[in-house]
Amino acid sequence: MPTGSGSGSGSAAVERCARAVADWEPRVQAWTQLDLAGAAQAAARSDAAAPGPLTGVTLGVKDMFDTEDLPTEYGCRLFAGHRPRADAATVALLRAAGAVVLGKTVTAELACLHPGPTRNPHRLTHTPGGSSMGSAAAVATGMADVALGTQTAGSVIRPASYCGVWGFKPSWGAAPVAGLKLVAPSLDTVGWFARDPALLDVVRRVLGGGPQVAPGVPPSGFALVRTPEWDLASADSRGAVEALAVVLRERGVPVDEETGIARTAGEVGVLAGVVAAHKTVQAVETVRSLAWEHRQPAGLSDELRAVLDEAATIGPAAYEAALGRRARALAELPALFRGADVLIAPAATGEAPAGLGGTGDPLFARCWTLLGLPTVTVPGAIGATGLPIGVQLVGRPGADAQLLAVARWLAPNPVPTVAARP
Amino acid sequence: MPTGSGSGSGSAAVERCARAVADWEPRVQAWTQLDLAGAAQAAARSDAAAPGPLTGVTLGVKDMFDTEDLPTEYGCRLFAGHRPRADAATVALLRAAGAVVLGKTVTAELACLHPGPTRNPHRLTHTPGGSSMGSAAAVATGMADVALGTQTAGSVIRPASYCGVWGFKPSWGAAPVAGLKLVAPSLDTVGWFARDPALLDVVRRVLGGGPQVAPGVPPSGFALVRTPEWDLASADSRGAVEALAVVLRERGVPVDEETGIARTAGEVGVLAGVVAAHKTVQAVETVRSLAWEHRQPAGLSDELRAVLDEAATIGPAAYEAALGRRARALAELPALFRGADVLIAPAATGEAPAGLGGTGDPLFARCWTLLGLPTVTVPGAIGATGLPIGVQLVGRPGADAQLLAVARWLAPNPVPTVAARP
Repeated sequence: MPTGSGSGSGSAAVERCARAVADWEPRVQAWTQLDLAGAAQAAARSDAAAPGPLTGVTLGVKDMFDTEDLPTEYGCRLFAGHRPRADAATVALLRAAGAVVLGKTVTAELACLHPGPTRNPHRLTHTPGGSSMGSAAAVATGMADVALGTQTAGSVIRPASYCGVWGFKPSWGAAPVAGLKLVAPSLDTVGWFARDPALLDVVRRVLGGGPQVAPGVPPSGFALVRTPEWDLASADSRGAVEALAVVLRERGVPVDEETGIARTAGEVGVLAGVVAAHKTVQAVETVRSLAWEHRQPAGLSDELRAVLDEAATIGPAAYEAALGRRARALAELPALFRGADVLIAPAATGEAPAGLGGTGDPLFARCWTLLGLPTVTVPGAIGATGLPIGVQLVGRPGADAQLLAVARWLAPNPVPTVAARP
Repeated sequence: MPTGSGSGSGSAAVERCARAVADWEPRVQAWTQLDLAGAAQAAARSDAAAPGPLTGVTLGVKDMFDTEDLPTEYGCRLFAGHRPRADAATVALLRAAGAVVLGKTVTAELACLHPGPTRNPHRLTHTPGGSSMGSAAAVATGMADVALGTQTAGSVIRPASYCGVWGFKPSWGAAPVAGLKLVAPSLDTVGWFARDPALLDVVRRVLGGGPQVAPGVPPSGFALVRTPEWDLASADSRGAVEALAVVLRERGVPVDEETGIARTAGEVGVLAGVVAAHKTVQAVETVRSLAWEHRQPAGLSDELRAVLDEAATIGPAAYEAALGRRARALAELPALFRGADVLIAPAATGEAPAGLGGTGDPLFARCWTLLGLPTVTVPGAIGATGLPIGVQLVGRPGADAQLLAVARWLAPNPVPTVAARP
């Protein structure tokens, strides 16, 4: 299964993805807009132009990003049929690098909680996670090579875990948010999904990141971090984290007690209360950012309206305190990383939950999102009932290139799509 | 001249502003869209509703903020006639507090350099500054009580200085940016103008800031800061800064050498290179954020296209270095503030320059914008040729309420509009 390397043909990539769409889309419903004819034309133009780093790569765009040629509805009835004038900055940069946009992918309502129709391709009765649900499912099924998502709590890392693909959330601010519908600006981060971590890194560079780092282990090794929420992860999610540590040791990577394979309670205390602070920051910024939507007489789900109503009761003092908690944790990060460059932690509480009425719990992404650290979901583990489980790797502030170098070293081979699995 | 206090009648305020519009707008050209009939209807609705903190206050909205009922063109031909679906978060919050939107004010092209048609009401052959040019001029002439602006370099502080009004740039992130056209997200800050600092503070609270602080001097006093660019300010701009220090002493405020009325070269060294770092961050983020606009075959000014072309040559390493410079300066801020809570510095290089082909130099706002500190332009001084000159006050990180308390203490009486001057 080709994964798109920048060396291929855009037209062939569109044809390949169109076949996956025919196979999967009726069941998975990952797309709000799909324009395969327009994509074929764009691919022909891309193939005729000078090759770019993403020539031959197809792209799904979470419907939180503006597109000049496709409706952009933010998963919200208030924006039905909305047509932006311009592409979001990310979309413009990826297109200029040769990527061909296939369409817009399903998002939970305004990238919050209320799910869209997308189903988990590994088991159709289960959620693919959210809010970047369509993007994760489209990549998992080979309907797109890369798909843009956004993360405000756990909206990239969690669906990547549930769908068994690589998901990358760069450092906050590393990828441009212009043309993205903002929900909680000090948290909102552009992320993306792929079946190959090398492709995650190509996208990072196209969006403005620094040069590629040679794949390999981090110079100072790994540390397994049992965050204060560790016991809320399922046995198989905890097991996946611990299994990765074992694999690393087996591959001769210097991760041992001395360099910090485990952290003491005091060190993990750097993160105490950070999840609660994230929830406060998210709630307050969301109710401010969605001030117009909140005041419309109709058009929001009851679920989102209740969230906004409750968020409106949180005062500025609680928000300031949460920002202070973030600042202290950032100042104390060296005590958490200590000698390590990469932390290993759960990506989600477990396998994708059954049912399509929710999108699962972003718990294990909240603290890293609040701190703005780069994180990646490493797929490959299988949970107790046979669904995918990811492991989260967390890099030092701004060490995006280094983190993806580790990801590429971990998995030189692409993750198979669902279709390729037994 | 009423300034809008939240206790008045919206209908009366609209009538008052309409008279100022009739007087001034043909000469000043502050507005891209003006809907006085719609404003009268909105005022009637506002007056009939429960009074809000901004009932009786009229609002001009810089045309970088989306509005559901008025075209939003970002000062750029590429967006001619563009109609957003929703109000920006700021606009929705201010409307919900009772403010009546009169229309959209002129912005420099995409809040960058290329000016719109607005003239300085104090001398029509001079620029009002930019990029929030229409907002500053509308407030100075009484055409609006409050007007929203944005600041990425000096787009609030400088036009406030040139137009002789109060301008406030809160801490970065303190006011919501959802629905604002982003240009350089780690710098872009919502700001606003008024003729009365008390009104600046009402707006701050409506947009989510903490409670009002009683007006008064800061507990630890003031420090005059001669930044590394001090010698580039005109004699009258430097004189305005020094005169304010004298006034403060005359009013018995404990600002003396011991508490830091002057700073040594070493302490000011905290700011060495910070202006250059700001320029790099602004350039790199702008060319990323305007990726779509940059790739359109036409529709940008030659001036902006040249800026973007040059910015595109700056590599990620220079950007990372500039972010590092910001981080170090933030870590060293205590050495700059030392015992003081408020810094006194120039707001602009001098009076508004002659001509309408540019908007003046944002030099003296760049460092504070990069550092995300709250700043306010204090009007009142008059320059060598009779045009206004402001002085800039800079607060500690997040001390927005405290800074505006100082502003209110400095000037309990509103600044007169241009019309009221001899």
